[in-house]
Amino acid sequence: MARDISELVSKLTLEEKASLCSGLDFWHTKAVERLGIPSVMVSDGPHGLRKQDMKADHLGFNESIKAVCFPAGCALACSFDRDLARELGETLGDECQAQDVAVLLGPAVNIKRSPLCGRNFEYLSEDPFLASRIAASHIAGVQSKNVGTSIKHFAANNQEYRRMTSSSELDERTLREIYLAAFEEAIKEGRPDTVMCSYNRINGVFAAENERLLTKILRDEWGFSGYVMSDWDAVNNRVEGLKAGLDLEMPSSNGVTDREIVEAVRSGKLAERVLDASVARILEKVFKFADNRKERNFDLEKHDALAGRIAEESAVLLKNNGLLPLDPAKAGEVLYVGQFAKKPRYQGGGSSHINSFRVTGALEASAEIAPGVRWVEGFKTDSDAEDPALAAEALAAAKQAKAVVIFAGLPDSYESEGYDRAHMRLPENQNKLIAEIMKVRPETAVVLHNGSPVEMPWASGAAAILEAYLGGQAVGRATSRILFGLANPSGKLAESFPLKLEDTPCFIDFPGDGKTAQYKEGVFVGYRWYDKRKMDVLFPFGHGLSYTSFAYSGLKTDKTSITEGETLSVSVDVENTGKREGKETVQLYVRDTTGSAVRPVRELKGFAKVHLKPGEKKTVSFALDKRAFAWYSQELGDWYAAPGEYAVEIGRSSRDIEASVSVMWNTSQRLPFHVDLNTTIEEILADERTAAVLKPMLDKMEEMFKGGGGEAANEAITPAMINAMIANFPLRALRSFSGAGNEEIEGLLKALNQAASGR
Amino acid sequence: MARDISELVSKLTLEEKASLCSGLDFWHTKAVERLGIPSVMVSDGPHGLRKQDMKADHLGFNESIKAVCFPAGCALACSFDRDLARELGETLGDECQAQDVAVLLGPAVNIKRSPLCGRNFEYLSEDPFLASRIAASHIAGVQSKNVGTSIKHFAANNQEYRRMTSSSELDERTLREIYLAAFEEAIKEGRPDTVMCSYNRINGVFAAENERLLTKILRDEWGFSGYVMSDWDAVNNRVEGLKAGLDLEMPSSNGVTDREIVEAVRSGKLAERVLDASVARILEKVFKFADNRKERNFDLEKHDALAGRIAEESAVLLKNNGLLPLDPAKAGEVLYVGQFAKKPRYQGGGSSHINSFRVTGALEASAEIAPGVRWVEGFKTDSDAEDPALAAEALAAAKQAKAVVIFAGLPDSYESEGYDRAHMRLPENQNKLIAEIMKVRPETAVVLHNGSPVEMPWASGAAAILEAYLGGQAVGRATSRILFGLANPSGKLAESFPLKLEDTPCFIDFPGDGKTAQYKEGVFVGYRWYDKRKMDVLFPFGHGLSYTSFAYSGLKTDKTSITEGETLSVSVDVENTGKREGKETVQLYVRDTTGSAVRPVRELKGFAKVHLKPGEKKTVSFALDKRAFAWYSQELGDWYAAPGEYAVEIGRSSRDIEASVSVMWNTSQRLPFHVDLNTTIEEILADERTAAVLKPMLDKMEEMFKGGGGEAANEAITPAMINAMIANFPLRALRSFSGAGNEEIEGLLKALNQAASGR
Repeated sequence: MARDISELVSKLTLEEKASLCSGLDFWHTKAVERLGIPSVMVSDGPHGLRKQDMKADHLGFNESIKAVCFPAGCALACSFDRDLARELGETLGDECQAQDVAVLLGPAVNIKRSPLCGRNFEYLSEDPFLASRIAASHIAGVQSKNVGTSIKHFAANNQEYRRMTSSSELDERTLREIYLAAFEEAIKEGRPDTVMCSYNRINGVFAAENERLLTKILRDEWGFSGYVMSDWDAVNNRVEGLKAGLDLEMPSSNGVTDREIVEAVRSGKLAERVLDASVARILEKVFKFADNRKERNFDLEKHDALAGRIAEESAVLLKNNGLLPLDPAKAGEVLYVGQFAKKPRYQGGGSSHINSFRVTGALEASAEIAPGVRWVEGFKTDSDAEDPALAAEALAAAKQAKAVVIFAGLPDSYESEGYDRAHMRLPENQNKLIAEIMKVRPETAVVLHNGSPVEMPWASGAAAILEAYLGGQAVGRATSRILFGLANPSGKLAESFPLKLEDTPCFIDFPGDGKTAQYKEGVFVGYRWYDKRKMDVLFPFGHGLSYTSFAYSGLKTDKTSITEGETLSVSVDVENTGKREGKETVQLYVRDTTGSAVRPVRELKGFAKVHLKPGEKKTVSFALDKRAFAWYSQELGDWYAAPGEYAVEIGRSSRDIEASVSVMWNTSQRLPFHVDLNTTIEEILADERTAAVLKPMLDKMEEMFKGGGGEAANEAITPAMINAMIANFPLRALRSFSGAGNEEIEGLLKALNQAASGR
Repeated sequence: MARDISELVSKLTLEEKASLCSGLDFWHTKAVERLGIPSVMVSDGPHGLRKQDMKADHLGFNESIKAVCFPAGCALACSFDRDLARELGETLGDECQAQDVAVLLGPAVNIKRSPLCGRNFEYLSEDPFLASRIAASHIAGVQSKNVGTSIKHFAANNQEYRRMTSSSELDERTLREIYLAAFEEAIKEGRPDTVMCSYNRINGVFAAENERLLTKILRDEWGFSGYVMSDWDAVNNRVEGLKAGLDLEMPSSNGVTDREIVEAVRSGKLAERVLDASVARILEKVFKFADNRKERNFDLEKHDALAGRIAEESAVLLKNNGLLPLDPAKAGEVLYVGQFAKKPRYQGGGSSHINSFRVTGALEASAEIAPGVRWVEGFKTDSDAEDPALAAEALAAAKQAKAVVIFAGLPDSYESEGYDRAHMRLPENQNKLIAEIMKVRPETAVVLHNGSPVEMPWASGAAAILEAYLGGQAVGRATSRILFGLANPSGKLAESFPLKLEDTPCFIDFPGDGKTAQYKEGVFVGYRWYDKRKMDVLFPFGHGLSYTSFAYSGLKTDKTSITEGETLSVSVDVENTGKREGKETVQLYVRDTTGSAVRPVRELKGFAKVHLKPGEKKTVSFALDKRAFAWYSQELGDWYAAPGEYAVEIGRSSRDIEASVSVMWNTSQRLPFHVDLNTTIEEILADERTAAVLKPMLDKMEEMFKGGGGEAANEAITPAMINAMIANFPLRALRSFSGAGNEEIEGLLKALNQAASGR
């Protein structure tokens, strides 16, 4: 049924149209019954369905229906697996259809600018390429079930502190290359039905009334055709928001802002066509859902199994001296320590919080696969203070055991929507006990449950470290399966683990003064910072171990040089050289060696996860276009790759490059060049078109310095200094150094600009 | 003779007045003979007199008269000795009087933002407190001889790259606390006759036409009453410059800009009184010099002795495992390595370059005080390439010797005005030979001749390291006297030595893209950066060893709490607990523990150098006023110290704090507080005046969240999250959460702002 939305809009009264631009309540759009416009429901996501139980509560944040809690974004991204992200999306889509939910609010792709951001556990990565690709697959999966998504929080919302008012201050290049890039490909490729704008301001302008963001970039540049909804209570000025491209305000404004819209149209402050366009965009998606309702199975058990599988694929084996995998036959010699082994911390607090129908602990799971594992509590999970009795018991048990697995992690109160973490440490009682146990039992592995990196003062003493993140309701099963070798870990870090908080790029500037957050680190976020500054990290971006081993060979490209519009094919062979089947994530990085701008050492521009049996070898291929080589030039207002040489690198992590090949990029694109009185000689000489014009005048100057007119250089003024001084001279200096008059200089300027513009 | 300058100005024609605002040639002001206005000479400094030999050259950069080259600024600042800086100034003043020089162009106080800045050797420190105090004494010394100074380069000129056009982009707080602060106290206390404006732009506006800088801050705020001259060819637009407060353009513009001034006055674009004021300021200082000429002695030998003394006081003993001092009686067992032992690198290239009447090498000097020292060349000083024959000879000789002293350093071409260093390394051949010699002879000391920090990959293997900097023409004598214990080193680093270039605060942003230099590290320059980020450094700011030892005790203050207008007296006892007489620099740092702003861990706010015989104890006193505790609030447009607790620390370096005492700062000064719809609940509650107004409304909101209306918090929404959400809510959110209408909110706003303004 093809509805004529514009005809429908034309039948609506002004008041009805305004009413459709805000929520009915916390979770529903408004209906217009006389015209058959239904109310549809939106529900929190993205790693599970948090549908409010409307029987109990029509307003707020209360008990939601029982659902399946999948691994949070922090874990999912570590799978580096687009197919898996899509499968998760499809599964969530089925749940939404079964529960009559029209839009699942996610995925959340904000860049992990600081490990302290309270909501990092929901976000995917510090790298926009990875975040956008995982998100695109997630979106495609959900929407394949005719359920909408709402990619969020658009944009540059990278902290909770003063999130409703603080302005994220960043330059255009940083915005484009890092913060918008996380959304860009997800939106272009995934085509989400809706985008959720964030609370914060960007360079002073609220996201919710940011026309540049919501219209010029999102719709005009990226071709987004869905509707934009506000984050809950993100609206500052409703009419300005509508003009900027914010279609749906959520939640209800109790009619206040609907009346403001009506008044604005009546008084001529708001063109009615702007309102009409917003209403049309909303209705398009409302009917897309309502007109195509499907009954779906909602098999909790199957979904629980998927949750476990994703948790297995996402857990990152950070370190292993050979202790893992443990032998299930000797499970009786293994001691699990910590309450988290019984009740894992598997999700964070806030709007993404799922009312899980089941939670499996690692200890419970071990009973099936490796019976006999012993357990002691060791420490309180909701406290920083040591419990001497529990600690003594754990130490005694650790001495008796042959291997110890400590389940450590952050308390719920450390990580939540609404506020940022105060530091990057585990609770002191955990760090203390871990170090003490390692002293008496070197065969100690640590399993971590946390949504964002922690400092690990005991890392060098650990026999193994498994980062399980907030791995969803089945994380305990996944963990025990990995520990006992029933699953082979294949997760790779989607973020760097710095050694200490003070190492992080924005340490000094995060979270800002409450009014602004200055993104002074620019594009140097995550590994881009640590690599550029040659800093040691605890574990680098992309790092993750396996129980088997992989060898790389045969890196090649189909061309040695490419140009605008062309695609470079890159392939590399990966072989499983160990004795277990396993998966490897091949990472492709690009390094700009042209020197045309200050750029990261390398940037992720491709990844592929490949499953290999022992001895098996596969060829992995990538396609690179201009964007893989380009940076964003504000001057040009476009992406720009300087002509010259680039290295295409294949790595196991951002710090472990296995192979590299050079390619040449050719282009006729040039950065804008306008010559004025303060353009330097060096700049003019760097462009062959303008160099030719200046040469005659320049020779005159050099003569002056180097001997003409009796001015021989002495030892104070070396040739290097003369060259540098001339290079740095602006054109205006020709007046005094060459004796050129103003008219002569004006003529020269004109000639130079004609040359520069190719006329 | 009290001249009536304004009467004189009134007698000048417009053309004459304009002509007085630019140089006669490279080094002279213009005369107006009919009115008895003389031409006076200015000459480069600041670590010696670089007076052009006018017989040979009236225009440019040629041979200057023979003079005494004192240690460069990089060394002088390490003396931490204001009396010594004054003595140097007096000596230079005598030379100027003897040579008929009216203004000595210096001191140069630009902050060492990056070790790569080509001109760092001329500058004093990374710390504005130290730089400004040393400069104030230098100025006072020169001007005590009725010779003017020209403190330079004003301001934010911290690189050579594109120095004539690049814009230094920095926020007001950084400008005030770091870059202007280096000038501020020097100008307020030292009262230089002239200030030299820099080439660069500051936030887009050329220093040479920056009214805010040259008039509002310099004259109106700081009370400067002399004249401003341009750096050579720094003038972009002459008329705008004059309006902004640039009095004298240097060098000559060949009459071009004089005519522009005349035209501008005639056409009404420039008020003649602006021109008159500039001319009056210039003539005031011209006559101050010309009317008070004195004959001075110019005893080169005496000045050479002072140059040696300053070099001794400035050399910094960075490391000493006991090798130093060497025994003069066993000089025959000592091997000096390197051409620098014969021809030290003792000054940098560019406008500060002195035509020294004598240069003493360390080897030559050793002949008198420790006869028998042997020497090999070891490496070429003007090359990066190893010379195998020289290296082999050096290694063989090192094996024979009992102790080796390698004289290493940067070639002339590495450090100069006009361009920045490309890296922070010594030439490769030097690093290689040093490491090789240390392998065969662990008793190896390294003497360094460089104007700015170098990486020292061999530091851990060195028995001793003596940083001699560019120590002036007598540096060789000073070095040998220190090496053989005739002088006890007492220099302290005026800058941090980072481990590697990538550690430096502005590594990514230096020197910028040629158009702008973004000062993104803000106030965190030098030790402020390394301390805040808890980074290891090679040697910290303030570090320097002695051949004797000092003990600190009895730190006390005269009050436990102070307020606006009061001064805190701090005293501490220092005792020479070793067996040699020596000098210790007591360093006072202040640490803000109020948390009112993101601030450096500690900042230098006092220093005093004290001479102590063995066993002698002296009390050192400091006076601290508000400024010692304050930071610059852009919002307030003033210096601000939040009420609360501050630590006053006494240290041997910024990383070696010996004692600390707490003081309370009380003040009624408040940061401005204006409440609008986006002011957060937290901000309103933080001010007791506004908190009282908001309370009733807030209680309503908390009820809503915490149970009122049937909305009990569930596990997704923890109490911590509720508190954080409410704290971060802007006032406008009250509309939807409390149901308050627009009128009610307007009323609340009004009440809050009345409370905030104290009405």
